Amino acid sequence: MTAAAPSIVDPSTGAHPFPHRHLLGVAGLAPWEAVWLLDEAEGWIGRAKRSDILRGCTIINAFFENSTRTLLSFEIAGKRLGADVVNMTVGASSVKKGETLLDTALTLNAMHPQALVIRHGASGAVQLISEKVDCPVLNAGDGRHEHPTQALLDALTIRRRKGRIEGLTVAICGDILHSRVARSNFALLGSLGAKVRAVAPPTLLGDAVDRLVVDCFTSMDEGLADADVVMMLRLQRERMTGGYVPSPREYFRFYGLTADRLKHAKADVLVMHPGPMNRGVEIDSAVADDIVRSGVTEQVEMGVAVRMACLDVLTRNQRGVAGW
Amino acid sequence: MTAAAPSIVDPSTGAHPFPHRHLLGVAGLAPWEAVWLLDEAEGWIGRAKRSDILRGCTIINAFFENSTRTLLSFEIAGKRLGADVVNMTVGASSVKKGETLLDTALTLNAMHPQALVIRHGASGAVQLISEKVDCPVLNAGDGRHEHPTQALLDALTIRRRKGRIEGLTVAICGDILHSRVARSNFALLGSLGAKVRAVAPPTLLGDAVDRLVVDCFTSMDEGLADADVVMMLRLQRERMTGGYVPSPREYFRFYGLTADRLKHAKADVLVMHPGPMNRGVEIDSAVADDIVRSGVTEQVEMGVAVRMACLDVLTRNQRGVAGW
Amino acid sequence: MTAAAPSIVDPSTGAHPFPHRHLLGVAGLAPWEAVWLLDEAEGWIGRAKRSDILRGCTIINAFFENSTRTLLSFEIAGKRLGADVVNMTVGASSVKKGETLLDTALTLNAMHPQALVIRHGASGAVQLISEKVDCPVLNAGDGRHEHPTQALLDALTIRRRKGRIEGLTVAICGDILHSRVARSNFALLGSLGAKVRAVAPPTLLGDAVDRLVVDCFTSMDEGLADADVVMMLRLQRERMTGGYVPSPREYFRFYGLTADRLKHAKADVLVMHPGPMNRGVEIDSAVADDIVRSGVTEQVEMGVAVRMACLDVLTRNQRGVAGW
Repeated sequence: MTAAAPSIVDPSTGAHPFPHRHLLGVAGLAPWEAVWLLDEAEGWIGRAKRSDILRGCTIINAFFENSTRTLLSFEIAGKRLGADVVNMTVGASSVKKGETLLDTALTLNAMHPQALVIRHGASGAVQLISEKVDCPVLNAGDGRHEHPTQALLDALTIRRRKGRIEGLTVAICGDILHSRVARSNFALLGSLGAKVRAVAPPTLLGDAVDRLVVDCFTSMDEGLADADVVMMLRLQRERMTGGYVPSPREYFRFYGLTADRLKHAKADVLVMHPGPMNRGVEIDSAVADDIVRSGVTEQVEMGVAVRMACLDVLTRNQRGVAGW
Repeated sequence: MTAAAPSIVDPSTGAHPFPHRHLLGVAGLAPWEAVWLLDEAEGWIGRAKRSDILRGCTIINAFFENSTRTLLSFEIAGKRLGADVVNMTVGASSVKKGETLLDTALTLNAMHPQALVIRHGASGAVQLISEKVDCPVLNAGDGRHEHPTQALLDALTIRRRKGRIEGLTVAICGDILHSRVARSNFALLGSLGAKVRAVAPPTLLGDAVDRLVVDCFTSMDEGLADADVVMMLRLQRERMTGGYVPSPREYFRFYGLTADRLKHAKADVLVMHPGPMNRGVEIDSAVADDIVRSGVTEQVEMGVAVRMACLDVLTRNQRGVAGW
Repeated sequence: MTAAAPSIVDPSTGAHPFPHRHLLGVAGLAPWEAVWLLDEAEGWIGRAKRSDILRGCTIINAFFENSTRTLLSFEIAGKRLGADVVNMTVGASSVKKGETLLDTALTLNAMHPQALVIRHGASGAVQLISEKVDCPVLNAGDGRHEHPTQALLDALTIRRRKGRIEGLTVAICGDILHSRVARSNFALLGSLGAKVRAVAPPTLLGDAVDRLVVDCFTSMDEGLADADVVMMLRLQRERMTGGYVPSPREYFRFYGLTADRLKHAKADVLVMHPGPMNRGVEIDSAVADDIVRSGVTEQVEMGVAVRMACLDVLTRNQRGVAGW
C-alpha cells in the first residue's frame, strides 16, 4: 500500500518478526505493519472450516464493558483457530467485589492464557494491563482511546471494495467526541495515505481539530463532497453525561445520512458503519439497506478475519512459529 | 408411524433430501418428515461420546429471551456434535443500543455460522430472521407461536414410553393461552394421529377451541378421563399482563395435577411437563416425583438427542452429506 | 506428608481406586487422599498444552452464586483436559421461574454430563444435589460450608513454597464467620499436621472457637506471632445482614495486614489471600505487592492445576481408567 516492509529478514527462516508484543492501538503500527496484518487477514476470509493452529491454547476475552458484536467476533475468531476461548464479562466479575484492575489482570495472567483480549470503559486501562502480564494483549476497545481491530477491519473493507486506500477521501461522520472507532480510523487511514475528514456538530468534533491529518467539517453536505467513503458513527447518547444532548430527531435532521445528502459524495461511494446502527438517528433506513453501496455486513465479516489474523500473529512467538 | 415417506429417492445415493432449509415450526413438517427426525434422534440417545460431524462448524445460539434448559440443551447438543458453539444472550446484546432485529440478524449472518438457533419473545421473529440469512435457522421458541424441538422431544418421549403415538389420547393441561409448547404439540401430535385434548380454565384456553384436531375441556376430571398421556404446562404468570391472574393456590385447587385427579386417566398414564415445574401450582409434588409415571427427566434427555438430530440434518447440505 | 496411603492395591492394575464419588468437602478426605490429590495436581502445573483425556466429555458448571475466578478456573481446567464445558449461571436460570433446586439438578443430570461443578449460596445444597445425580459432583463453594478445591490449592501453594505443611504455623485472619474458605482450610491444613490459628474480631470468629485443632486470637499481633503462613480473608460486607458491620477504615486499623504487623510473623512468612483482595481493607497494598512473600498469584495458578486433577480423578471410573 503506502509503504513496503523494511528488509529485516531472518535469514534462517526467511521471516522477520512482527515487532509488537501487544496490539494496543493502531497508533503504534508502522504503515507496512498494518498492511501486512491486512494481508494476513485476507488469508482468513471466507467460510472455510476452522484451523487448528491455536489448538491447546487458552484465550481469555475479558470484557469490562458490554459488547455483543466485538465479543462474538473475537470468540468466533479464536474458536475458528482451534483455541479454547473463555469469556469473562463484567456482570459476573470480581470487580464488583472491590478488586483493583491490576489484581484482576494478575489473576487472569496466573491462569496462563496464550492471549488476553480486553475491553474496558477507561482509556489506557488495556495498556496498563498489558504491562503486567506475560502474554499478548489485544485491545478490544478502551474508553475513547483506541479500537485497533475495528480500524483494521474498516481498512480491509475499504481496500477490498476500492482496491486501495491511498488517495481516497474518507468522511467519518457523527459522534466523534465519544468514538474510539473514529480515533483509531483517523490514525490508521491517515497513515495509509487516505485523506480523512471529520464531520460532526461542533460539540461532537472532539480532538479531531487538533489532528494534522484530519480536515474538519460541521456541515454534512460539505463534509461529504466527493467522498469515496462515508463512515457513519453511532450517536452514543449513553455517554453524554452533562452538556447538551441532541434529540434523535434533531440530530437526524442535521447529521443523519440520507439518500439526498449522500448525493454530495461520489456516485460509487462506500457507506460504512461500525454497528449497531440506529436507523433514523445517524442513518436513514434507505441508505442502510442500499446493498450496492453499504459495506456494513462486509465489515462484520472482515472483523472475524482481522481478529483471526491478529490472534495468529501475536501468538506466533509462543508457538515457535516464524513471524512475517 | 402415521405415514411412510414418499419414494422420492436420489438414485445415486439412495437418499432423498430433507426438503426444509430451516426448522421454524412443526406446522410445516409432513408426518413422515417428523417421524424421520424422531428416527434420527433415536440414534443420538445415550451417554455415547461425542461425534465430530460438525467439527469446524460454528453454531450461534442467539437468545433474545431468557432460557436455561433450552439454551443448555442446544449448547450441549452442538458441542456433542463437535461444533464450536457461541452463545449470544440478550443481556449483553446490541438490541439494547437500538439495533433492529434484522440488523442483528445480518450481523450474525456475516460471521458465517453454519447454523443459527434463535429464541425470541415475539411470535414470527424467527421466521423474519430466517428470510434474511444464508444458513439454517432453528426456532428455539418464538413468542406464543412455536417451539418445534420441544414438540419433537415430547413426541419422542411418548413414542419410547408408549411404543406409538397414533391413537393415544393426550391431554395438554394448563396455561395454553401463553404456551408455544402447547401450540407445537397440538400440531405435531395431531398430525401423528394422537387424539389431542386441551384442558384449561376458559380464560387460558386460547385458540385451542379453533383447532379442529383438538377437543377442549374446562374440567380437569373430564379432560383427564382415560388419557394415555397428561402433559402439564407451567402457569406463566409473568406473561399475564392485564386481565385476571389466578393465585397459585386457587389455580392448584382447580387445575393442579394431583394423584387423586390422575386416577381419571389410564392406570399406566405418562405424565409430562416441559419444565421448569412449579410444584404446588400446576403439579403436586407426589405426582412430579412418581418415577414410574413421570417422563419429565426423559423429556430432558430426549431434548439433547432431538437437537443433535436437527442440527445434523439441517447442516447436511452444507457439509455435502446426503439427506434422508 | 502426614500419612501414607493404606496398601489397598488392586493387584491387576497396581492401582487402588479413589474411594470418593464426589468432592463435596475436605472434611471427608483422609490425609493420604488429600496428599495424593496434591501429587496429582503437581503433574498439571505449568503452561503445557492441553490434554485430551476428557475429550468427548461434558462438564456443566452450575453456578447459583456469582463468581469470576472460580468459574473461570474450572472452565479453563475443564477445557485444558479437552472436555466440552458448559456454564449455567444463575442470572439465566430457571430457578427464577420457581423450579426447585432438586428439579434443576435432575434436569442437569438428564443431559448426562460426565461431571457437575456446583456453587450455591446455601450450605449443604451441593451435597443435596450430589445425592440425586449419576455423575461426580464437585463443590465449588456452598454457603459458609466448604470450598474444597480452594483448600487444596492453598495446601499445594504452601507445600511448594515451604516444602511441607506438617508443623507449620498457619494464621487464617479476618472474616472467618462468613468464610467457607476458612472452614475448608481449618479442616485440611489441620489434618495435614499444620498448627492452625484463627485471628479475627470476636464477632467474626464464628465456630472457629469450637474447633479443637484451631487456636483462636482476637489480636492480630498475637495471632501472627512466629507464623509461617498468613492467610488473609476478604471482609464479606455483603453477607453482614443484621448485626454490627465494621467500616472498612475501622476494620483496617485493627485487622488489616500491614508491613508493620507482618513483622510479628517469621521473616520468610508466606502471605496468602483467596481473592478478590480489598486493598486498604483487609490487606495493605505494600503487603499485597510484596512479590517475595506474597503467594497470591501462585494460588490462582495452583487453582487450575488442582481443578484439573480433581476433574481427572473423579471421572476415571466412567472413563475406565484405573485410580490411584
